[in-house]
Amino acid sequence: MIRFTTSGESHGKALVAIIEGIPAGLKINQEYINKELSRRQQGYGRGKRMLIEQDKAEILSGVRHQRTLGSPITLLIPNKDYKNNQDIMSPFSYTKVVKPLLKPRPGHADLPGLIKYGLEDVRDILERASARETAARVAVGAVCKTFLKEFKIDIMSYTLQVGNVISDVSAVQKGEFWKNVETSSLKCPDIKAELQMRRLIDRVLKKGDTLGGKVVVVAKNVPIGLGSHTQWDLKFDGRLARSLISIQAVKSVEFGLGVKLAETLGSAAHDEIFYSKKNGFYRTTNRAGGIEGGLSNGEPITITCTMKPLPSLVNSLTSVNLETKKMSKAEVVRSDVCAVASLGVVCESALACEIASAFKEKFGADSLNDIKNNFNSYNKRQKAL
Amino acid sequence: MIRFTTSGESHGKALVAIIEGIPAGLKINQEYINKELSRRQQGYGRGKRMLIEQDKAEILSGVRHQRTLGSPITLLIPNKDYKNNQDIMSPFSYTKVVKPLLKPRPGHADLPGLIKYGLEDVRDILERASARETAARVAVGAVCKTFLKEFKIDIMSYTLQVGNVISDVSAVQKGEFWKNVETSSLKCPDIKAELQMRRLIDRVLKKGDTLGGKVVVVAKNVPIGLGSHTQWDLKFDGRLARSLISIQAVKSVEFGLGVKLAETLGSAAHDEIFYSKKNGFYRTTNRAGGIEGGLSNGEPITITCTMKPLPSLVNSLTSVNLETKKMSKAEVVRSDVCAVASLGVVCESALACEIASAFKEKFGADSLNDIKNNFNSYNKRQKAL
Amino acid sequence: MIRFTTSGESHGKALVAIIEGIPAGLKINQEYINKELSRRQQGYGRGKRMLIEQDKAEILSGVRHQRTLGSPITLLIPNKDYKNNQDIMSPFSYTKVVKPLLKPRPGHADLPGLIKYGLEDVRDILERASARETAARVAVGAVCKTFLKEFKIDIMSYTLQVGNVISDVSAVQKGEFWKNVETSSLKCPDIKAELQMRRLIDRVLKKGDTLGGKVVVVAKNVPIGLGSHTQWDLKFDGRLARSLISIQAVKSVEFGLGVKLAETLGSAAHDEIFYSKKNGFYRTTNRAGGIEGGLSNGEPITITCTMKPLPSLVNSLTSVNLETKKMSKAEVVRSDVCAVASLGVVCESALACEIASAFKEKFGADSLNDIKNNFNSYNKRQKAL
Amino acid sequence: MIRFTTSGESHGKALVAIIEGIPAGLKINQEYINKELSRRQQGYGRGKRMLIEQDKAEILSGVRHQRTLGSPITLLIPNKDYKNNQDIMSPFSYTKVVKPLLKPRPGHADLPGLIKYGLEDVRDILERASARETAARVAVGAVCKTFLKEFKIDIMSYTLQVGNVISDVSAVQKGEFWKNVETSSLKCPDIKAELQMRRLIDRVLKKGDTLGGKVVVVAKNVPIGLGSHTQWDLKFDGRLARSLISIQAVKSVEFGLGVKLAETLGSAAHDEIFYSKKNGFYRTTNRAGGIEGGLSNGEPITITCTMKPLPSLVNSLTSVNLETKKMSKAEVVRSDVCAVASLGVVCESALACEIASAFKEKFGADSLNDIKNNFNSYNKRQKAL
Repeated sequence: MIRFTTSGESHGKALVAIIEGIPAGLKINQEYINKELSRRQQGYGRGKRMLIEQDKAEILSGVRHQRTLGSPITLLIPNKDYKNNQDIMSPFSYTKVVKPLLKPRPGHADLPGLIKYGLEDVRDILERASARETAARVAVGAVCKTFLKEFKIDIMSYTLQVGNVISDVSAVQKGEFWKNVETSSLKCPDIKAELQMRRLIDRVLKKGDTLGGKVVVVAKNVPIGLGSHTQWDLKFDGRLARSLISIQAVKSVEFGLGVKLAETLGSAAHDEIFYSKKNGFYRTTNRAGGIEGGLSNGEPITITCTMKPLPSLVNSLTSVNLETKKMSKAEVVRSDVCAVASLGVVCESALACEIASAFKEKFGADSLNDIKNNFNSYNKRQKAL
Repeated sequence: MIRFTTSGESHGKALVAIIEGIPAGLKINQEYINKELSRRQQGYGRGKRMLIEQDKAEILSGVRHQRTLGSPITLLIPNKDYKNNQDIMSPFSYTKVVKPLLKPRPGHADLPGLIKYGLEDVRDILERASARETAARVAVGAVCKTFLKEFKIDIMSYTLQVGNVISDVSAVQKGEFWKNVETSSLKCPDIKAELQMRRLIDRVLKKGDTLGGKVVVVAKNVPIGLGSHTQWDLKFDGRLARSLISIQAVKSVEFGLGVKLAETLGSAAHDEIFYSKKNGFYRTTNRAGGIEGGLSNGEPITITCTMKPLPSLVNSLTSVNLETKKMSKAEVVRSDVCAVASLGVVCESALACEIASAFKEKFGADSLNDIKNNFNSYNKRQKAL
Repeated sequence: MIRFTTSGESHGKALVAIIEGIPAGLKINQEYINKELSRRQQGYGRGKRMLIEQDKAEILSGVRHQRTLGSPITLLIPNKDYKNNQDIMSPFSYTKVVKPLLKPRPGHADLPGLIKYGLEDVRDILERASARETAARVAVGAVCKTFLKEFKIDIMSYTLQVGNVISDVSAVQKGEFWKNVETSSLKCPDIKAELQMRRLIDRVLKKGDTLGGKVVVVAKNVPIGLGSHTQWDLKFDGRLARSLISIQAVKSVEFGLGVKLAETLGSAAHDEIFYSKKNGFYRTTNRAGGIEGGLSNGEPITITCTMKPLPSLVNSLTSVNLETKKMSKAEVVRSDVCAVASLGVVCESALACEIASAFKEKFGADSLNDIKNNFNSYNKRQKAL
Repeated sequence: MIRFTTSGESHGKALVAIIEGIPAGLKINQEYINKELSRRQQGYGRGKRMLIEQDKAEILSGVRHQRTLGSPITLLIPNKDYKNNQDIMSPFSYTKVVKPLLKPRPGHADLPGLIKYGLEDVRDILERASARETAARVAVGAVCKTFLKEFKIDIMSYTLQVGNVISDVSAVQKGEFWKNVETSSLKCPDIKAELQMRRLIDRVLKKGDTLGGKVVVVAKNVPIGLGSHTQWDLKFDGRLARSLISIQAVKSVEFGLGVKLAETLGSAAHDEIFYSKKNGFYRTTNRAGGIEGGLSNGEPITITCTMKPLPSLVNSLTSVNLETKKMSKAEVVRSDVCAVASLGVVCESALACEIASAFKEKFGADSLNDIKNNFNSYNKRQKAL
């Protein structure tokens, strides 16, 4: 089992994550973690805070001389913006009066959060609910990806849609696909679509509005048999869905063909099974998105996530002042026009963590070398089928 | 916390479920549980096994004189078809040779399950992976619904789509909506669409093919503040997504507007906040599907689930014989043409269990009366805001 | 991970247990489970109910043709005494008046249970709190022991003390030890002590009083490295302690020298480390009871549990009538004079479940053969140290 | 539910703890946390590291203006000794050769840890296994105690035994008891015994040996009904036992009379039940240590923990050099002669965390005020019995 916890408010001192269960003997590259953090901060349409924060993770525990010890790994990402918010966010008592935020923003945790926790200042909720928290998840994801790379498991993502502009994925040449994604300012494989997306973002920015979209996350070389069909809470797709929906602004997940499966006939909706001496069992389609019966089936795990347009609007929505109960415009909090490109990186992290966790449950062990032995022994058995 | 486990193979002796955490003092009506089980078995397009099994749950523990004791509740649903399968499914050693099933069905757990567990007879996997398991979940759901009804929380579902036929929900008169659903053989609110769906099912049945679709599950009167924005694994939508995706054949979940949010502008994608003395805070839209920032916001929780067409086909798909490794048609196992109407009932159960669990975490307590006190006290505080 | 749940009231229809995570391909012998159940029911000093109930477990799921499928295993133990208690324990509404029990027994869950759950009839608590529940745990334990035997892990127990009679363990010849335990009516290795214990039991029975004692549970051949030093809730001794203390009437657990360690000097309290080519690292003492730093260290896990004298007394203790609030003798419920011999069997089961669970976490895998491969590969690495 | 995780190596940069589930609106006093940290570092017999480290916890998240937000609370305790160990403990690659520790210490995680995790330098294990980790637990405990104080739940501890010197608790005047504990350099209520303990410590220090002992932890005013009799893993004593045994060097836990219950007759082993209008149900004895049937019964929870003598000896024990396999004295690592007084503080923390967690499960809610309402409503119901 791998488990992780994040903590930290958006303008507090720092974000922190503790990850447990990463096996001992794994080489950790701090630069790689920071590169992943930087990937999260990029993307056409991100706001100005990205200029303030250039996230770097400090490793506080669990790693010695670049190698994991099997003990909990602590990653600390300081909030550079804290220095501008010390009075507001101090854990100590304060002398100056800090003006509370009283107009909860629709689409955020603001109002249900205040009611649940019996608090009165919207800031008491928004600071933790902020998507800035995903920086901590990306740091955790970078560690999990490092682990998975040892087994050639690759996790990638691309932008399928921004607003009403949809990538024509089928038109992209296979060899160009991931190259385009890498160089695209929106992680979009379809260069023409990207241009339209950028124009759309520019237009919407001027109107003070925001844009959602869709991203596709893919995990390649996932072994057959993660998850289980035997109990509802062990199904691998269920676990992945929880992890992805838990990301701020994600409102749907689709496995494989997803919503299109509703209108597809059974004869065209599944992945027929073939066999060759060289490859063992294989499929020529991946309509299931790599999961059958709650189990990974060896095909790329492929999940489409819908992101709602961010609810922090410059032309803010109608709300109510909590004190006066009068209708009022919601608080305006700095945000992005479009964060779809960043979402991809966060989804990759979520996927990486769940795969790493299920991988370790299946292959057990506490030292990287032991896991490799167990993994190889499983593959050998499988080939001998 | 409420937790539950199910067990049982499709043609084994029985399905069993154990539910823990239901408070003491709740009146349990066995008839109601059986009625829910019967709802699951209905629907135009279901196969012949439904005639064999008329599920009844026997209460083995946790209930005395119709009232819960706070102890684990055990529900046992005998499989009537076991008597025809005793040799095949016996837990004891057997003398007769039972012919193994060797041709795994695409779209099922069959192949990844066999590989994972190192087994050789497809039956060893399909028996547990079968959607018959959902009968146990529906029994558990009936108990959870009984609990939630004490707080006026109602859980319903309807069929939005079967194959390419989509209900025109907007055309249905409000007062007719749930009445239509109740009387419809497909739980469809749009009577015209239902007719088309039935015709489609008839046509597809003749071709030996199967149909998927979409259902919408709704929970009304859920209090504000279930779930939490504070940690990824506490988000309520994440928990619900796990639970729904874990249902056999569900391949996507969408909250509120779901995939449509990708193309909606921020200014039109959220639910503005209003206030009246009588109603407190309220919304006039429910695009979020009742969840903001991982918290229930008091609006109906509304989730759309896509069901893939069942992969047990009469004209079965291409597969491989596990022994000979030769290409072969997959095993043919009795199944349904279309089980979308049943799926709704199962989704209701999944929703009921998660809401009941989060409800009990929020309001604590072990006796129904205490929970009512706590619930009322929370509502009173909320009204005084 | 292996997890299990039990359910059932003492005089309800049945006890049920569901176990998950037992790997596929394990041979299950129903006779062995029943033999273990029978061991639990024996012992000098057990009461008359033992004559009524001769527990047999029925396997309802998870096993096909004597072999596990990897799916949840359901074990059902009918309560033969239910037929005499149908009116009293029926899950249905009842017409006859059933007299409530109103005088909670000190030392039982009766009073705190009633208060917690807001109930009024002592029976509503005592039925589930009864140590009869341990029959279900023993059935689960038998399955876990079957799994562990594949790896030569043996779990045994013996009676160290009954009342003030203490076995002189040092006086027993090594070769006689377990033989004596097996043939002893009290699972006592010291034949002389056993005789005294039986006399004591006879005397105390006449007085209507009860006796506690101590049992020692031992697990041999546990591999090095179960549990972890890295986090408080992963320590193996902590997990074992929870499991053992959770057994009805157990009031203390001691690892290795236990309470004697308080007065032992550091130089005499630990197990020095030696090495030989043949045996690898080894110890010549086992003061730690097989656990160092929260990890199994390869020596026999050795835990002493204290059982309080059963609080169901014929000459019942002072209590209060819940209705009248008048002082009153507590309810008299049929029980045993001394159940120390049975406790050993239950402790073995608890130990077996925790070891099996930690074992599977360490060696992963879902098929028995894979686990064997992983286990052997770990042992090979260890020997190459 | 309250959950917490700690991280950090003994000579790494810092210890960190993240606590989740503390309700919103609780006043947090950083001084109090530091006072608790300081209590842990005191006690006659502690070593020199205590002079280097004067632990202070920095609050990184979850608290704003001294009040909890309901979000995860992060506490960071820098290791002052890190500056002297940077090369040795750096997470980065290192140029200088750091000499590995090769002689595992008996009684520590050293050897089983290295084998489990496939590591080669004893330091890779001992740094995390060190009891310095308990500083993080004490910080967490201070937060939980703050929460519990709102409900008048007090948690204390005293030293019962050091080596073979046992406090004569019965000889201490009731009014003096806790005053003596507070002023004692060994948290010992019996002033005469304390003097003997100090002399013993002095003598043993000279010999280069170490001392264990016993502490008693007590929680007063715990409400009736924490934990549950309904399932093995919900029993409150089981949870407490896990938590206490998970503390470094604790080798036994005893509830109430503990091991003495083995020799006590049933008629003298339980706490009879009385009733008065003023006090409701009450007891005049507390042999059960406040727990019956896995449930708190309203009496002080009273647990005795045995601490083994610390295994880090100046005259170190026999071990084996991991490289040469030759017999060798174990590594000598700076430690304490006797840490029994500190153990009490750590046990208090463990108790506080489990009580706080069970308390929140029972009374639910996310805001301190709501919990108070629920708590009062429960008490009112109880009084009306």
